[in-house]
Amino acid sequence: MAESWSFLDTFERNFRPLIVIELAKGTKEETIEWFTKRIEDKKANGGAQLLVKPLVTENGDENIYLVGASHLRLLLGAETVGLVKECHDNSMRTFTYSSRKTFKDFADDNHNFLTMAECQYIIKHELENLRAKDEKIIPGYPQAKLYPGKSIVRRLLTNGILVQIFPLHDREELKKLRHSWYGRVKVGYQPLDEIRCYFGETIALYFGFLEYFTFALIPMAVIGIPYYVFAWEDYDKYVMFATFNLLWSTVILEVWKRICAIMTYRWGTLLMKRQFEEPRPGFHGVLGINPVTGREEPVYSSIKRQIRIYLVSLPFVCLCLYFSLYVMMIYFDLEQWALDYHEENESNFSNLMLFVPSIIYAVVIEIMNRIYRYAAEFLTSWENHRLESSYQNHLILKVLVFNFLNCFASLFYIAFVLFDMKLLRQSLATLLITSQILNQFAESLLPYWLQKRHKKRMKKRVCSLKTDTDLSLVEQVNLEKEMGTYFGTFDDYLELFLQFGYVSLFSCVYPLAAVFAVLNNITEIYSDALKMCRVYKRPFAEPTANIGVWQLAFETMSVISVVTNCILIGMSPQVNALFTDSKTDLILTVALVEHLLLAIKFIMAFVIPDKPRDIQIKLAKLEFESVEALKQQ
Amino acid sequence: MAESWSFLDTFERNFRPLIVIELAKGTKEETIEWFTKRIEDKKANGGAQLLVKPLVTENGDENIYLVGASHLRLLLGAETVGLVKECHDNSMRTFTYSSRKTFKDFADDNHNFLTMAECQYIIKHELENLRAKDEKIIPGYPQAKLYPGKSIVRRLLTNGILVQIFPLHDREELKKLRHSWYGRVKVGYQPLDEIRCYFGETIALYFGFLEYFTFALIPMAVIGIPYYVFAWEDYDKYVMFATFNLLWSTVILEVWKRICAIMTYRWGTLLMKRQFEEPRPGFHGVLGINPVTGREEPVYSSIKRQIRIYLVSLPFVCLCLYFSLYVMMIYFDLEQWALDYHEENESNFSNLMLFVPSIIYAVVIEIMNRIYRYAAEFLTSWENHRLESSYQNHLILKVLVFNFLNCFASLFYIAFVLFDMKLLRQSLATLLITSQILNQFAESLLPYWLQKRHKKRMKKRVCSLKTDTDLSLVEQVNLEKEMGTYFGTFDDYLELFLQFGYVSLFSCVYPLAAVFAVLNNITEIYSDALKMCRVYKRPFAEPTANIGVWQLAFETMSVISVVTNCILIGMSPQVNALFTDSKTDLILTVALVEHLLLAIKFIMAFVIPDKPRDIQIKLAKLEFESVEALKQQ
Repeated sequence: MAESWSFLDTFERNFRPLIVIELAKGTKEETIEWFTKRIEDKKANGGAQLLVKPLVTENGDENIYLVGASHLRLLLGAETVGLVKECHDNSMRTFTYSSRKTFKDFADDNHNFLTMAECQYIIKHELENLRAKDEKIIPGYPQAKLYPGKSIVRRLLTNGILVQIFPLHDREELKKLRHSWYGRVKVGYQPLDEIRCYFGETIALYFGFLEYFTFALIPMAVIGIPYYVFAWEDYDKYVMFATFNLLWSTVILEVWKRICAIMTYRWGTLLMKRQFEEPRPGFHGVLGINPVTGREEPVYSSIKRQIRIYLVSLPFVCLCLYFSLYVMMIYFDLEQWALDYHEENESNFSNLMLFVPSIIYAVVIEIMNRIYRYAAEFLTSWENHRLESSYQNHLILKVLVFNFLNCFASLFYIAFVLFDMKLLRQSLATLLITSQILNQFAESLLPYWLQKRHKKRMKKRVCSLKTDTDLSLVEQVNLEKEMGTYFGTFDDYLELFLQFGYVSLFSCVYPLAAVFAVLNNITEIYSDALKMCRVYKRPFAEPTANIGVWQLAFETMSVISVVTNCILIGMSPQVNALFTDSKTDLILTVALVEHLLLAIKFIMAFVIPDKPRDIQIKLAKLEFESVEALKQQ
Repeated sequence: MAESWSFLDTFERNFRPLIVIELAKGTKEETIEWFTKRIEDKKANGGAQLLVKPLVTENGDENIYLVGASHLRLLLGAETVGLVKECHDNSMRTFTYSSRKTFKDFADDNHNFLTMAECQYIIKHELENLRAKDEKIIPGYPQAKLYPGKSIVRRLLTNGILVQIFPLHDREELKKLRHSWYGRVKVGYQPLDEIRCYFGETIALYFGFLEYFTFALIPMAVIGIPYYVFAWEDYDKYVMFATFNLLWSTVILEVWKRICAIMTYRWGTLLMKRQFEEPRPGFHGVLGINPVTGREEPVYSSIKRQIRIYLVSLPFVCLCLYFSLYVMMIYFDLEQWALDYHEENESNFSNLMLFVPSIIYAVVIEIMNRIYRYAAEFLTSWENHRLESSYQNHLILKVLVFNFLNCFASLFYIAFVLFDMKLLRQSLATLLITSQILNQFAESLLPYWLQKRHKKRMKKRVCSLKTDTDLSLVEQVNLEKEMGTYFGTFDDYLELFLQFGYVSLFSCVYPLAAVFAVLNNITEIYSDALKMCRVYKRPFAEPTANIGVWQLAFETMSVISVVTNCILIGMSPQVNALFTDSKTDLILTVALVEHLLLAIKFIMAFVIPDKPRDIQIKLAKLEFESVEALKQQ
């Protein structure tokens, strides 16, 4: 590695470690040499032109490398990935090196023009786009085939030579962020811009959505409280509450799009051109020509994929849904049996027995959820999607449908088959509150505690060695590489989605749900923040302009909730009392109201523009400028 | 006009008249001189660099001018408007003069590279973009104010100095088109590509949609015939027919999007970048700075417009709808009265009296439709929309809602208030057939006959003069300038939309509707073709990539038809016989089926991709290339 060292000698002052590469222990010398050579090589030679430095650990292993880049290299990289930055005239423009002087805060010696998260994103992008030239195999591993244009990093990852790549935390920045985020007890907004600078847009958008959603629930919660306090049971009050909820949920989802546009415009991702996505690492197929890029890469027939989706995955999902319903029916049988048993021979034991079915069902649901998750991941991976985004969408859809059924099927059964409103309210409250408590515990506090214990042990081990190398960096890398990996915002959104279901699907039966949701979300913000800052490895920043498929999921939920709430109100004894002479009239009235509400919902969604006027004008202005510029050419 | 003549001497050989400009009689000499000067002036001097030639008519009036352009000028114009043409490698690309050699059929001496319709569109675009420089008024008309950047042609039009601008027919081409379109009796597709070459994309797309829609209705018609022939009244057969219809209507609307994408890709409009729309001629406001372009132009507060829309137009439309319903109620009262009268004193007179209410109602509806149309146009114009497209959308929405109510309210009333299926079937048949016959007559045959008479008279008058100038051109211009103006595809689509309503809203009551629709559409194609080729002035070609707001209108109609058909089936005696013991069960079943059908519809619309895979790949390829090209820079 002498070569690498001499390289670093020259650049030592510039070298700021940004990303950690962990290779498998015992990786062959020639592989390492070739890989670092390719990373450091000039762009013109097909390299990434980045800086690499091995991390000298206590036991002399050379399997961890730090990657950085010169300031100039990062600026050129920013142009490649198409970062959008603010100009002096407050407009947002795609950054180019030649026009760098027009950008706000740009100075040749200001190394903070790009945030650390952006630098790490750029380096990740460059590494992933490091492609095989004429190598047929990875040197040292004849079984690891390469072909021109194949991403080297992805091949190394799939072959297990590369264990992981992750960005380093910035201890100073993190401390500041922690302080302003959850360090002091205060009422106020989250520092979303700082979160975005540190963790990137995807995560900042999640926290933005969480915060927005919490605020949006407050009116529902406030209106819901008197229903609980005064035990209101009037027909018209419930109808009013439900109607308000339904229209409100439409409004908040539409307004979120506008707020999202404002935020992502400020962050530049609204304007960022979508990069051409490369095939995901797991994608396989016969080597062919990509019809879009004309490059050689694996191709896989779309018809084969459709067949797998519709003839295997779809039936499997349906079967799972059926099985889940079947389990639910067994649960209700058990419940009935326990109730009968309790009535027959009343004792302490029989009293305890009453809880057994619920506990068994909860455990079974949890197990089913986990097994299904693995199955869904396996199936979606087997469907062999070319793009990560399409893989994600199919996975989300599968998991969403199953989770929806698992969570709400029993409630639907209680409401629309058993017609037991009291039991519905009770089950809803139990499910909502226990799921919230369990989630908060399992998601953040438990990993935090484990992490803390592990850290203490690590610290002891590292400190006992006392070498004179840059200890704190070695220590940091060793600590962070053992931390858990944050697998994206999927589970966080799923939690919010199910919560939205609890709040809106049966809102007219249990108005207090919104109160619990608000309380949960306030602590959720803190526990999620803790999780991001303390428990997990720093995730790579991912530029994004919206919450994607989740917007659709929330909107679908709000449509379903119109239907359920209308039926619930129609079933309530108060409303039934109004239509004593004709049940038919009642049902027709309910159906009419439901259709009207749905129509209003769709009209509202259509009328409210997705982007605020000033953002629209700014976007039109940019487009106009680019068309004019094209004309000038 | 000596100057203009000398100009023409040089260019005579190149001059091919494309567009006719008719000025008001008695337009001042200095105005004409200034206007033609501006049209002919070099681009660099802010002119349009086109060729103008006055048409010498029999009475020596110089108020008609022919506009043309050199071949080079048209090619440069094609670049300005962003025409997309096919390249040698079969890909579609935006035409630029510098890359002209790469385009199929391009040769410096091939003047047919651009179709005549394209040339006319280019000239229209250039004329409309002829803008005032430092003129404060139109010379000779001090009351006609100008400001820098104001379109001169639009100001001339609003001030009545310019009577009309229209493109000339190409007699040769038109003859060929007529022959292949409707000249011979044949079964086959319309020559859509030739229609597009001659009339442009908007009109070709209308005829494409008409043809597609007719073919799509055939399965419905075929399945509908046995219901009529064998007088099937079984419950399950009706349910099957209605279900098929509902799913089919979803499928055809989704598939149309794909077919539309294929056609417009071939025509290049799918790829054409939207031009920045200029304010529509009627738009007025205080002179200000357009925030998008930074140009000086009238600005009008969007809030004021919103107030006008929601506080004036919306209540007015609602009032009109209410009034229309009120008139309908009077009609039913009259009907009842006539029936009573007939029953009391049965005679020939009373028999005739039975038809009186229908006739009065039909006449009143027609009158209301016309008055409302004027009111809607006035209101929409008063709303002061900046863009023609937004004006059109608001107008279409207003007219659509009212027409929908006028056409279908009585049917809804018969079906869901009177519960008279027999009357419904009868009314539906009468309405559908009479409206079809009336439409075909009023729309094409009557104008054609008027036109023919007028033409004969004109021919006589022109021929009697026998001057030795280019008689046929003068004759042609004089004939065409008197022809009616085709005001766009609005009324044609509206007719189809209402027809779709007749076919789908009550399809399970009157399966024969589809048969009549198919028959009507076959003749409609011919009568519309006749109308385009014979009755009206040639319209300007308008590039467009889809049928716009009509897609939404048809989709909405198909959603409404799910609801109506489900209710109708639920009301049928056959279904009622199945649920003798409980009417509640019946209604619940109907509601459930309806929700399921709606869910299937939305899922189908979501699952079927809007563009076929090969078009998607072609578009992605172009985008990839442009991103790569940008990177190379």
